[in-house]
Amino acid sequence: MTTFIGRGVVSGVALGRIKRPARDLTAYLERYRPGSVEEETSRLERALAGAKDQLQAILSGPSVDDTLSAIMGAHLMMLDDPGLVEYIMEKIREGDSAPRSVLAACEAYAAQFAALDDPYLRERAADIRDIGRRVAGLLLGVDGEGAGAQAVEARGVASNSGIVLCAPDIEPSVVAAYPPGQLQALLLGQGSTTSHAVIIAKARGIVTVVGLGEAVDEIPDGAEAIVDGDSGEVRLSPDEKERNAVLARIAAQAEQRRQDLADATLPAVTRDGVRVQLAANIGSPGEWENARALGAEGVGLFRSEFLFMGRDAFPSEEEQFAAYRQAAEGCGGHLCVIRTLDIGGDKPLAHLAIGHEDNPFLGWRAIRISLERTDLFRTQLKAILRAGCYGKVAVMLPMVISAGEIRQARAILTEATEELARERREFAADVPVGIMVETPAAAATASLLAPACDFFSIGTNDLVQYTLAVDRGNPKVAPLYSHFHPAVLRLIDATIQAARQQGIWVGMCGEMAGDPLAAPLLVGMGIDELSMSAPSIPQVKAVIRNLSICEAQEMREAALAMDDAAAVRAYLEKWRRSAAL
Amino acid sequence: MTTFIGRGVVSGVALGRIKRPARDLTAYLERYRPGSVEEETSRLERALAGAKDQLQAILSGPSVDDTLSAIMGAHLMMLDDPGLVEYIMEKIREGDSAPRSVLAACEAYAAQFAALDDPYLRERAADIRDIGRRVAGLLLGVDGEGAGAQAVEARGVASNSGIVLCAPDIEPSVVAAYPPGQLQALLLGQGSTTSHAVIIAKARGIVTVVGLGEAVDEIPDGAEAIVDGDSGEVRLSPDEKERNAVLARIAAQAEQRRQDLADATLPAVTRDGVRVQLAANIGSPGEWENARALGAEGVGLFRSEFLFMGRDAFPSEEEQFAAYRQAAEGCGGHLCVIRTLDIGGDKPLAHLAIGHEDNPFLGWRAIRISLERTDLFRTQLKAILRAGCYGKVAVMLPMVISAGEIRQARAILTEATEELARERREFAADVPVGIMVETPAAAATASLLAPACDFFSIGTNDLVQYTLAVDRGNPKVAPLYSHFHPAVLRLIDATIQAARQQGIWVGMCGEMAGDPLAAPLLVGMGIDELSMSAPSIPQVKAVIRNLSICEAQEMREAALAMDDAAAVRAYLEKWRRSAAL
Repeated sequence: MTTFIGRGVVSGVALGRIKRPARDLTAYLERYRPGSVEEETSRLERALAGAKDQLQAILSGPSVDDTLSAIMGAHLMMLDDPGLVEYIMEKIREGDSAPRSVLAACEAYAAQFAALDDPYLRERAADIRDIGRRVAGLLLGVDGEGAGAQAVEARGVASNSGIVLCAPDIEPSVVAAYPPGQLQALLLGQGSTTSHAVIIAKARGIVTVVGLGEAVDEIPDGAEAIVDGDSGEVRLSPDEKERNAVLARIAAQAEQRRQDLADATLPAVTRDGVRVQLAANIGSPGEWENARALGAEGVGLFRSEFLFMGRDAFPSEEEQFAAYRQAAEGCGGHLCVIRTLDIGGDKPLAHLAIGHEDNPFLGWRAIRISLERTDLFRTQLKAILRAGCYGKVAVMLPMVISAGEIRQARAILTEATEELARERREFAADVPVGIMVETPAAAATASLLAPACDFFSIGTNDLVQYTLAVDRGNPKVAPLYSHFHPAVLRLIDATIQAARQQGIWVGMCGEMAGDPLAAPLLVGMGIDELSMSAPSIPQVKAVIRNLSICEAQEMREAALAMDDAAAVRAYLEKWRRSAAL
Repeated sequence: MTTFIGRGVVSGVALGRIKRPARDLTAYLERYRPGSVEEETSRLERALAGAKDQLQAILSGPSVDDTLSAIMGAHLMMLDDPGLVEYIMEKIREGDSAPRSVLAACEAYAAQFAALDDPYLRERAADIRDIGRRVAGLLLGVDGEGAGAQAVEARGVASNSGIVLCAPDIEPSVVAAYPPGQLQALLLGQGSTTSHAVIIAKARGIVTVVGLGEAVDEIPDGAEAIVDGDSGEVRLSPDEKERNAVLARIAAQAEQRRQDLADATLPAVTRDGVRVQLAANIGSPGEWENARALGAEGVGLFRSEFLFMGRDAFPSEEEQFAAYRQAAEGCGGHLCVIRTLDIGGDKPLAHLAIGHEDNPFLGWRAIRISLERTDLFRTQLKAILRAGCYGKVAVMLPMVISAGEIRQARAILTEATEELARERREFAADVPVGIMVETPAAAATASLLAPACDFFSIGTNDLVQYTLAVDRGNPKVAPLYSHFHPAVLRLIDATIQAARQQGIWVGMCGEMAGDPLAAPLLVGMGIDELSMSAPSIPQVKAVIRNLSICEAQEMREAALAMDDAAAVRAYLEKWRRSAAL
């Protein structure tokens, strides 16, 4: 029996047969006969309409759920983006064929997203490529291989033989196309955990292992496989005894998941009465409804970048105000924490030149840009202050490394309130200001920064990268990346203790916040809030509701004494098994 | 009066007239008439010989000192490098002219160095370009503008009018060409502090300000300037009163420097008897003699990379053994700490494929490579163990983030001893093994790593970069880089305390170790050893000899309570002024 090891990102165990999606459009492109500019334009228009029909069909189909609906809805919106359509048209006018124009324009658009710092937004690149393939597939008459067609093919598979989808990387709509229950597991060569494909897999409880690298090419189509989303293990061709053991585990975990979802809207309170706020990370105001249904009690991270993307100029104060107001109103009485612009990296927004940087993660980004481009920053702050009249909002500053930066930002906030007062605008004067603790500098000096802050939110994705000097997008070092590394745990613990001592609340909005394994540790450290991708909420809530503070504090102490990330993980997994979660 | 602000890297104040070196070879290249391959080859040979004569002339000239001699000696060696000469010949055989071949080959060679992680080795790129310009200058008949000619021109200047050299970047030989006392200050647009030009400036006490960016283009040739190497301030066209004040300060500081050098070989002992080991960072065995003359008591960082550079294959165990033995023997009874291979980054050694990385500083490098390429690592360890029979050596592991890595490295060390025993080789069985503490991960878990180590050496250059998420090679964020940042100070302090608790010695080999301002803090924290570029030793020694432990500990406490790097620096500068150092 052959075994492969990757990184488990959606936990659970699954059994099914390996299936590889077909993907290559090259042969179709070579056969395609382009017409005149006018012909190509009208073909494009028909294909765009056809793609919208496909998406509408998926949205009204039997397998639709909130997550799928949000994502396919976003795709529909992108298809209507006049900037994208104009970009495609420009290429057609330059003499390219319609399908090549679509693929090239979507690729260029996707590259803009791929260059962003925020892993969530970076992964939107896959969505744009997905749309491009869908439209190009229609133009090329790809019947059995387009993204839409994948759905048809998927539905044709007998529903009692589970599928284990295996690919280097995958479009979200291919994952989404499978009716619930049929796709048992997802195996990916790439290592990201924030692609829409993985988000859909999480939402549907599809056991997922990423970072398999070139091993995905060695896994044969049609082989039966056991996939363990906790250990990251993929075992091919199991014997009868192993099959039966796995089937029993699958039945038990399905029962657990039903229970978690049923309890999703109960509060996250430990057995001995300590309450933790469970909030959602969202990228646009429209995502809030789904998050609330899954049990979110507010927004712990509202990414403002979506307002700045895919356009020629910076959004005006009015445009930003409208979006922030919508988010604030949507959250009702709950807090909505708005992160100020978090861009940077090797390639920037089309309307903000950053220039090449050898190490963009250590470069000009986030608050560093805001404190230099104070015009942009002041406009954003004014929009947030105004939105504060329509709900509870907070300002969160990304990438802070020193108290001086917070003081500078607060000074600009004061200017913003003064401007608003002069302009006789309505605004909230008491908007709390906090920082993302996502650099080792901020974590190591949390006690110095706390007096300047109304709250902390620990951003684990960057904190882990900088602390360990590991770019997890780099497959050569990605295995070293772990939020259970002793240094990361110590920095997080120090940050939480500093906040508690200062009497400010402290949350977490990195990926670790949505990891059910991490929840006991974080609760034991005294975290006040966990903000995560909405689909993770039910499971994390279930963990917290099964926990006592005493137990959590003991686990914190035990984990902080360990010198190895793998030992911490093993310890937490053992606890979870014993707690039957 | 116009004022510009950069980063002061060689302290002191200076007065002189702005001078810009001429540099452009383009016009000469266009006028050059290439001959046949044979003709170009013999022209090249003549030019190489001529360049050697020039270097010999500098070496035997009246202005030679130990540093200049080491650097120009290295240039002479590079001119003899058969790999480089063969590379130039290859280009000539391909049809290029001799001067173009020289410049292209040196540029390609320099690019290899420029891609290294180690800032010291990276800066050797400038040396290779310097050599290239020297040889090309001879081929092109550049009389008034070649590097060698700069020397002539420099010597022609009346020695009582001080010169302030001002350029975007500069070759070391241009700086070296000025007789001592004539070049008063150096102003550079680029921000590096480890180029040979800056090292020569340090050795000669030439007040230096770097990182002036495009401002260097605005400073007019011939203007009189006051340069403050502490504040980084450059003031043009001072009035009579300012001139006189500056001249008095210059006289006082010259007296101080004479005193420091005279005391260089005394031990570094505080007024109350606490001894600190002052060691040197060296890049080849030949650098030790100069370091010892300047007061070094051993080598705290021997960079092994030079053995791996500019060649087609990895060096054999024998070759490495010969170099390590030479270093160990040279140091006499002193300890020589050999750092294992510290490469990586976007472009690697010619014989080790790393591939493109988006963020090389967070990528596959140093110990991460050694633990995967165990064949290379074992060979290097065997060579070090054998050298241990000829002097006191230690093994230092770069870029460690976890105890597991140290355990793995020690296991490979055990294999190496077993192999040596089987091969019946002589070797030292008791070579100490330590780590560079240069990631936030290592610093934050120093107490977990100490039990696995015989010593720590804090590498501040990387530690600052990762902690602050600042690539200091990136001019957009370089101003944020400071080893006085509160987070850096806390991590350093925690590392030192962890080492003392475990009873192992703890040193420092980053740039901070050679900063006289930092010395009181580090001594107050309890550092055992400071290893630095040799020319910094006399001044740091003078600071320590003027210090009491009690005072140092008070300064440590005061600095650790500050929330701002600038405040820490100002506090230390105030102390230095009051102590008249």
